[in-house]
Amino acid sequence: MKQFLTLDDLPNLHQAISDGILLKKDPYAFEYIGNRKTLGMLFFNPSLRTRLSTQRAAQQLGLKTMIMNFSNESWNLEFEDGIRMGGLSSEHIKEAAGVVSQYCDVLAIRAFASLTDKEKDEQEIVLNSFIKYSNIPVINMESATSHPLQALADAITIKENNLIKRPKIVLSWAPHPKALPHAVGNSFVRMVKQLDFNFIITNPEGYELDPKITGDIPIINSQKEALKGADFVYVKNWSSYSNYGKILRTDEEWMLTKEKMKITNNAKFMHCLPVRRNIVASDDVLDSDDSLVIEQANNRTFAAQVVLKRILENG
Amino acid sequence: MKQFLTLDDLPNLHQAISDGILLKKDPYAFEYIGNRKTLGMLFFNPSLRTRLSTQRAAQQLGLKTMIMNFSNESWNLEFEDGIRMGGLSSEHIKEAAGVVSQYCDVLAIRAFASLTDKEKDEQEIVLNSFIKYSNIPVINMESATSHPLQALADAITIKENNLIKRPKIVLSWAPHPKALPHAVGNSFVRMVKQLDFNFIITNPEGYELDPKITGDIPIINSQKEALKGADFVYVKNWSSYSNYGKILRTDEEWMLTKEKMKITNNAKFMHCLPVRRNIVASDDVLDSDDSLVIEQANNRTFAAQVVLKRILENG
Amino acid sequence: MKQFLTLDDLPNLHQAISDGILLKKDPYAFEYIGNRKTLGMLFFNPSLRTRLSTQRAAQQLGLKTMIMNFSNESWNLEFEDGIRMGGLSSEHIKEAAGVVSQYCDVLAIRAFASLTDKEKDEQEIVLNSFIKYSNIPVINMESATSHPLQALADAITIKENNLIKRPKIVLSWAPHPKALPHAVGNSFVRMVKQLDFNFIITNPEGYELDPKITGDIPIINSQKEALKGADFVYVKNWSSYSNYGKILRTDEEWMLTKEKMKITNNAKFMHCLPVRRNIVASDDVLDSDDSLVIEQANNRTFAAQVVLKRILENG
Repeated sequence: MKQFLTLDDLPNLHQAISDGILLKKDPYAFEYIGNRKTLGMLFFNPSLRTRLSTQRAAQQLGLKTMIMNFSNESWNLEFEDGIRMGGLSSEHIKEAAGVVSQYCDVLAIRAFASLTDKEKDEQEIVLNSFIKYSNIPVINMESATSHPLQALADAITIKENNLIKRPKIVLSWAPHPKALPHAVGNSFVRMVKQLDFNFIITNPEGYELDPKITGDIPIINSQKEALKGADFVYVKNWSSYSNYGKILRTDEEWMLTKEKMKITNNAKFMHCLPVRRNIVASDDVLDSDDSLVIEQANNRTFAAQVVLKRILENG
Repeated sequence: MKQFLTLDDLPNLHQAISDGILLKKDPYAFEYIGNRKTLGMLFFNPSLRTRLSTQRAAQQLGLKTMIMNFSNESWNLEFEDGIRMGGLSSEHIKEAAGVVSQYCDVLAIRAFASLTDKEKDEQEIVLNSFIKYSNIPVINMESATSHPLQALADAITIKENNLIKRPKIVLSWAPHPKALPHAVGNSFVRMVKQLDFNFIITNPEGYELDPKITGDIPIINSQKEALKGADFVYVKNWSSYSNYGKILRTDEEWMLTKEKMKITNNAKFMHCLPVRRNIVASDDVLDSDDSLVIEQANNRTFAAQVVLKRILENG
Repeated sequence: MKQFLTLDDLPNLHQAISDGILLKKDPYAFEYIGNRKTLGMLFFNPSLRTRLSTQRAAQQLGLKTMIMNFSNESWNLEFEDGIRMGGLSSEHIKEAAGVVSQYCDVLAIRAFASLTDKEKDEQEIVLNSFIKYSNIPVINMESATSHPLQALADAITIKENNLIKRPKIVLSWAPHPKALPHAVGNSFVRMVKQLDFNFIITNPEGYELDPKITGDIPIINSQKEALKGADFVYVKNWSSYSNYGKILRTDEEWMLTKEKMKITNNAKFMHCLPVRRNIVASDDVLDSDDSLVIEQANNRTFAAQVVLKRILENG
């Protein structure tokens, strides 16, 4: 594996899930693999889980880490080609990426969507610029349109908690006071599509995810209808995709509640975190024994470790 | 030892002091003890000594560290239970603590007093929330009401510099242009109370520390009277406790000067740092051979190492 | 070697260049040398290359690193002696340096010029205060008046790319929208003066570097004249030295272009980065095969490693 930008870069998702579960049992089994190698972690946005779980994953593989917060530790970067750099940006991505990739063996990058310019966001300018101008493998720690480390952790979590042959998975939109990106939703959809699940998405009208990603997955506007018989309910807010980056509603009707969970087949509750309590989901859902959110976060370490291990083995 | 929130968590202060002095002589004697373990250091406030000395202590125990500055690297946290999270906070402590504790083996946390709400500060909400929602040991790197790593370093420093059987220790309030917390004062008092010293506190009226902590220790308003015959003078500003968080005076009358040191029994001068020169104490005091402030800071490493070692041994 | 403040601290520049080239071939040859030692990296300004290359250099020597961003992680420092600290600064450099040097074995410090007070900048107050009040070796990661790690990396790069006995080196001023320090220019001049090169500086009138540094090196105001027959062209902006810190012109006349490179003897193009494209130099220069800028940045690792190794060997 030479890069990990979306889940599609994983040659075999089933194998990756199994690898993650094995690494969880014996996290230091490959401690030698990162010897004398360095992971550069570049952040253009805040991070808690990703920052710490990826560091931990690196440590468990014997890999050193160097962290760079571009918001306050370095120079403003310019991503446009051919521009006369007379403004705020002191350094062009051509140099920044070329330079940084000489100090590291692998790069991991977080760069969120702007939510103001769909075309630019879909070009994944930050991530793709680093790939173009660096000579080393790049890992996506959440980009404008995808968050594959989260999706792999979610896949591991479902695998660990699933008791039946073909579970029903519901991805439900939820309200949020701020406009959020589509990255987690997109990657979750891509992940479930690769596995043999009964999958349905539910969201209010106008909140449909990118149809190029959802394809022929059923999308319905009745959350209640969708939740019927669900084995796993994955809740997540995202802003409108068609009316790009806009918030169309923030009322509580779509908040996931204990009451709604009763419609399901004793479903497990999932969310990628951070989650706004009593807006996205109620306290009694988040605090119930059926919530997997803490376990999902735990599996972030092993998802990152699977990806780092594959990349190091190729190197 | 399962946690280190106040000095009272140390089963035996005398033993801890001796351990610190031994570790200072042979800092790498237990380099194997932290193998494959990670200390997560979480900062809600600035830090210089604590940040670096605790990292160094961890390194000397073979422990990896991961640092998180909550002010600019992560999400705003919500600490209130049952709240509808529609404001600035993106993540609840329940999730944050639960998640972070999965990536680390020990947590160390710095979270200062607000000085606006005495009741909340005394509840130590940040620290206690992390303890409540994480499953791993928590170390206090200065909380709202105590700074036990500093007090342990101070105890080591007094032990190293004390020549007589029962020295006279004076804790003297000093002026400061900003309202400061009571944490250092509180922990120093708790520490001295456990040792067989002749101890007296002096401060201007209205600046008495929490009487639940000072108990029956003599407190007098005459600094000169207090300094007579002192062997160690510990100077520190704190804001009013009764008139919580308020500054009652900032005049220079209480600044510690060389002149005042002459009243003492050639006392050693102590301060936890950072110190404002010529406000808290004059240059000639800070620059004199009797000042122990640099040595106190040095002992922060070994205080942290004693605590980390005990916690790792229990684990 | 006890400190590395300017290139003059290197006992033998030729040897240092050779050492750097050897370390580049076998970066882990001295992995044992930093065992149980810690490099403290203190930043008062942004940093990308220096931050990462110095960390990497340390790792390749088996040295641990601790990083401190003074702008947002610690207290404001006071550098003036005898002052009554009633303002914004919470800690004096006397304490800060004394304390920090106890937690580290080597310090590396970045502290840029103010460009408002020439005398203060030339006193190198930050760097010299750390030297004065700490007891450990100090490395300059770019100070007010010099950037010797960059110059050493540049020397290595020239050595690697030079084919003739006595190449012609041109240091050319270039325009920039912001006032920049003289550190890189100064150190480049100091470096070239130690080597047997044909060296000329070109800049617009009023932009002469400190004559105490340039000495008898020819300085001409015709960029075209200077570029004739050049083997290496080093381009860099700096603000006026005589009219200290001022920008006298920002027009494009002095931008380095492909057209101008034709005057040279197929010269290699050099710049320390970050570089503003199409202001300092045009895209076609930066993107040409003759550009060494990425290689210069790569050599920063080995320059830092040479310096760290010498300092550790002395220790």
